[in-house]
Amino acid sequence: MTVNEKLNLLREKMKEYGIHAYIIPSTDPHLNEYVPDHYKSREWISGFTGSAGTVVVTLDKAILWTDGRYYIQAARQIKDSEFELYKMEKGIPNYMEFIEQNLSKGQGVGFDGKAMSCADALKMKDRFDKKGIFIKSDIDLISQIWKEDRPCLPREKLFIHDLAFAGLSLKEKLDQVLGQMEKNKVDYYIVSALDSIAWLLNLRGNDVSYIPVFISYLLISRTSVTLFIDQEKLTHEVKAYLEENKILVKDYEDIFKELAAIAPDKSILVDNSKNSYAIYSAVKKSKMVNKEDIISRLKAVKNSVEIENIKETYIKDGVAMVNFLHWLDTNIGVDEITELDVDDKLLEFRKEQEYCLGASFDTIAGYNANGAIVHYKATPENYAVLKPEGFLLLDCGGQYLSGTTDITRTIVLGDITDEQKRDFTLVLKSNIAMATAVFLEGTTGKSLDALARQPLWKFHINYKHGTGHGIGFCLSVHEGPQGFSTDIPLEPGMLVTIEPGIYKENRYGIRTENTLVVVKDKFHQEAGQFYRFEMLTYCPIDIRAIDVSLLEQHEIDWVNNYHRDTYNKLSPYLGEEQKNWLRKMTAEIGE
Amino acid sequence: MTVNEKLNLLREKMKEYGIHAYIIPSTDPHLNEYVPDHYKSREWISGFTGSAGTVVVTLDKAILWTDGRYYIQAARQIKDSEFELYKMEKGIPNYMEFIEQNLSKGQGVGFDGKAMSCADALKMKDRFDKKGIFIKSDIDLISQIWKEDRPCLPREKLFIHDLAFAGLSLKEKLDQVLGQMEKNKVDYYIVSALDSIAWLLNLRGNDVSYIPVFISYLLISRTSVTLFIDQEKLTHEVKAYLEENKILVKDYEDIFKELAAIAPDKSILVDNSKNSYAIYSAVKKSKMVNKEDIISRLKAVKNSVEIENIKETYIKDGVAMVNFLHWLDTNIGVDEITELDVDDKLLEFRKEQEYCLGASFDTIAGYNANGAIVHYKATPENYAVLKPEGFLLLDCGGQYLSGTTDITRTIVLGDITDEQKRDFTLVLKSNIAMATAVFLEGTTGKSLDALARQPLWKFHINYKHGTGHGIGFCLSVHEGPQGFSTDIPLEPGMLVTIEPGIYKENRYGIRTENTLVVVKDKFHQEAGQFYRFEMLTYCPIDIRAIDVSLLEQHEIDWVNNYHRDTYNKLSPYLGEEQKNWLRKMTAEIGE
Repeated sequence: MTVNEKLNLLREKMKEYGIHAYIIPSTDPHLNEYVPDHYKSREWISGFTGSAGTVVVTLDKAILWTDGRYYIQAARQIKDSEFELYKMEKGIPNYMEFIEQNLSKGQGVGFDGKAMSCADALKMKDRFDKKGIFIKSDIDLISQIWKEDRPCLPREKLFIHDLAFAGLSLKEKLDQVLGQMEKNKVDYYIVSALDSIAWLLNLRGNDVSYIPVFISYLLISRTSVTLFIDQEKLTHEVKAYLEENKILVKDYEDIFKELAAIAPDKSILVDNSKNSYAIYSAVKKSKMVNKEDIISRLKAVKNSVEIENIKETYIKDGVAMVNFLHWLDTNIGVDEITELDVDDKLLEFRKEQEYCLGASFDTIAGYNANGAIVHYKATPENYAVLKPEGFLLLDCGGQYLSGTTDITRTIVLGDITDEQKRDFTLVLKSNIAMATAVFLEGTTGKSLDALARQPLWKFHINYKHGTGHGIGFCLSVHEGPQGFSTDIPLEPGMLVTIEPGIYKENRYGIRTENTLVVVKDKFHQEAGQFYRFEMLTYCPIDIRAIDVSLLEQHEIDWVNNYHRDTYNKLSPYLGEEQKNWLRKMTAEIGE
Repeated sequence: MTVNEKLNLLREKMKEYGIHAYIIPSTDPHLNEYVPDHYKSREWISGFTGSAGTVVVTLDKAILWTDGRYYIQAARQIKDSEFELYKMEKGIPNYMEFIEQNLSKGQGVGFDGKAMSCADALKMKDRFDKKGIFIKSDIDLISQIWKEDRPCLPREKLFIHDLAFAGLSLKEKLDQVLGQMEKNKVDYYIVSALDSIAWLLNLRGNDVSYIPVFISYLLISRTSVTLFIDQEKLTHEVKAYLEENKILVKDYEDIFKELAAIAPDKSILVDNSKNSYAIYSAVKKSKMVNKEDIISRLKAVKNSVEIENIKETYIKDGVAMVNFLHWLDTNIGVDEITELDVDDKLLEFRKEQEYCLGASFDTIAGYNANGAIVHYKATPENYAVLKPEGFLLLDCGGQYLSGTTDITRTIVLGDITDEQKRDFTLVLKSNIAMATAVFLEGTTGKSLDALARQPLWKFHINYKHGTGHGIGFCLSVHEGPQGFSTDIPLEPGMLVTIEPGIYKENRYGIRTENTLVVVKDKFHQEAGQFYRFEMLTYCPIDIRAIDVSLLEQHEIDWVNNYHRDTYNKLSPYLGEEQKNWLRKMTAEIGE
């Protein structure tokens, strides 16, 4: 079917249902960061393969919205269809404004509530109600027209995440959750977020790229826990494990029946920022308590077993990184190396490490100008060949049974300019300023953010992304709720990345990212309990790009201490050649 | 009348009105920082003269609440009465909790809504309703029993604040206000805050200590402006000025009738954080739009004429300070000097400066251990004699027609310890960190706060007060809405103080405070508009207390540049001896 044929089929259905616009977002029922192929409806209808975008089809128009990362790609991919591209920019109507402008009072808009975030749906409800535009939120037209070639829902088997990694048993975790439900005085708690379900059950799967989760819902009451899942995915071992832990199992789609059956006088905790509109609709007759997902906060604070595992895992990941960096340094200018090779080679080195499942997200390997594109991804159609000059920005991570890693290094491939050195050094200063922060109990990440930005702001430079984020444990590399943009107090056991950057469009990008864990510092009688960050990432920061004259003495000391630790921690696991290379790369600066 | 006699009279009245508890806060109808004597009901009934406290009288108990600053004084002042002292501390019920615990369902509590902040009254309403305790909010029992010796309401004459100081005429300011009312779609706007009224009308008075305001209300509609004031206070000149500007004048108490007469379909902008409960009650039948006081934001951004005036005024104030510091340095150890003398002498030097009306707030002159008491005030009953050793913490300011100043210096009187030097230097580092901040448009003071605290937190030290506040123009020395604890974006033209400190109980206190103005810095194509602070305060920071080894080079440079500027700006206005002294006190450090 061509795109235009698909659109015609869709419009026939729209007429059947009496609606004048149909919305197809990029979301899936679990608001996954990486959407399984089965749910890629927006891609199927439009032909546009980027990760972000929304389609609205009216009876005479078909519009695709996407952001600056994808303008060129989207234009190319829709050019043979009747789709028009609307840029997500100031001055251009967004999809809600477009609908308000193109539909009249009494006309209606439809979407599949299962694949629409609750937040967006509620925003639309609020806006469209005022305009007299009605909403049909339960019509999944795509399933009616996308049949033959539609990929199945993933059906990979689940496996048990060993207690030696997880640190707390399912029972212990459930007790924590029930304690929070008690505290919040709720009878039920519905969990849509797949990483939350995997964490609680100490189970992992393989339904989503990079993140070892499995498609399911979980409903917890004060007396029972029910997992809603395609039961084909359960091995005998997993079934026995669930039974032993008294976890009931029902079919995936049964969640909606089950929610509808809850008595209206019962209260149910929902986190509407993590649920689809269909879930919201199913529970809205009960007493909804809209609160931050309980598990989200529990899993953010890593337990001591997890932290021991993470520390070891970051050493392993550092060894893989050094093996890679040594390979790159040795081969650049000798063999042809492309951005794609970087990705392959990295995975090869990571896979040598114990417990490694693969990468934890799409590697960003951006050579020179590509490094300035914050979410760059090289593809077989579009990649650069590395030359022995300038920078390679490399943001990557590994998914291990024993933890999840995330690291960015900006690597000197050959000659660099003084401006590049200055910028690299400013990013380093920014990184050190945050890494060495000491802060009182109750301090939020947001309130520390200025520490990292100040060294760059003094040079009238800013980075238009967060300073860092939390990380899951053998789960999502981006995990809330803490970070440097939110009002969540940082607590001991929380992980954060620190990743400031400088991006010069069409020229180069620099980012240095480490992962750290919040730990207790001194307690002071009058001031209270202080916290600080402890380093997890060990991998050399390219000293060839440091302009020592821009560093204060305490910053020079920090770099030298960091490199001494890096050498000591990684060298026992390196080959002789790599060890020598690392010694050179961790030499003292500032003498 | 003794306190107990007053209490008995009050209880008779309470019985008449059928209430079981009566609340007497320290507030006045305009929530002034300094309460005129007429409104000091809490002081009259209890005998306790401190600035903060609340009294609750029940039929068999009389309780005074106050905070840590006043425990000793309050205990002494109430010891011959039946009053009991309740400390405002964790574990001791606050006055609302006390009322909940001591009154039963169906019993009632009374207060004078005119002298109760709207915020507190609404909190009580919310809490007491749940307990079935009723509230009578319009009974002013104190006026019925405090008659003979009650001070009159202030009746000082108003005067016009010259355009050469104010920069914008009444008409221009009113146009700004009407523009904001238009934008907020409100028909009326009630102003209770005396500094807002004085700012808008370009009038000043003398009803409140330190702050040249006059007791009044202002009601602005789209077509008229009415000033509610004791008309005795208006000179012929002021009357003519008001008439010329079409400002209607009515009696002070008429405001309540006038508010009651507003049609219920009209909308009225109120700032409930700045209004009494009586004002809230009078407007609540109209469409209340509870928003930040319009004038508050307008007057926070100083106009260019004000800024020129302020710059000159801070030079004058610096000259007065240097004259004082020179006097102190010359006479310490020679004559006996007390904390009270410091206050007198300072005022003497300030009054020598053009346009000076007096002090802008209660001087804090705390010698050694007294410096550790954040809100210390020496009194004729309780003051220290300065000796040629240790620190004098001096926080003071001048009220000038041409601006309002606020400065803190910690002055070396003789030998100090290495610990004192270290702490002085840390406070200096903290001050420099904030003073040199560069930040993007939209940045809030709150998000910069960590910059000032970080140098102290690294040594596990904290100060339990804000990093700084806004300042009025010939108005209140503490003026919102900006500061370093609020989510208000800093804008060019806003003033802020930067005043970190270290306090060692029973030993010493250190604080260094400068006032700065937000100015535009560079505009960068991609990052946006940057702002920074420009220094207003020029007065030496005591180099005898600096441990240079703790400073980074850029901090040493900052101190030397600051002192060079200080010498250059102040020396033309100093006597020869003072000039020589200043040269010595601004000598370069770090060579």
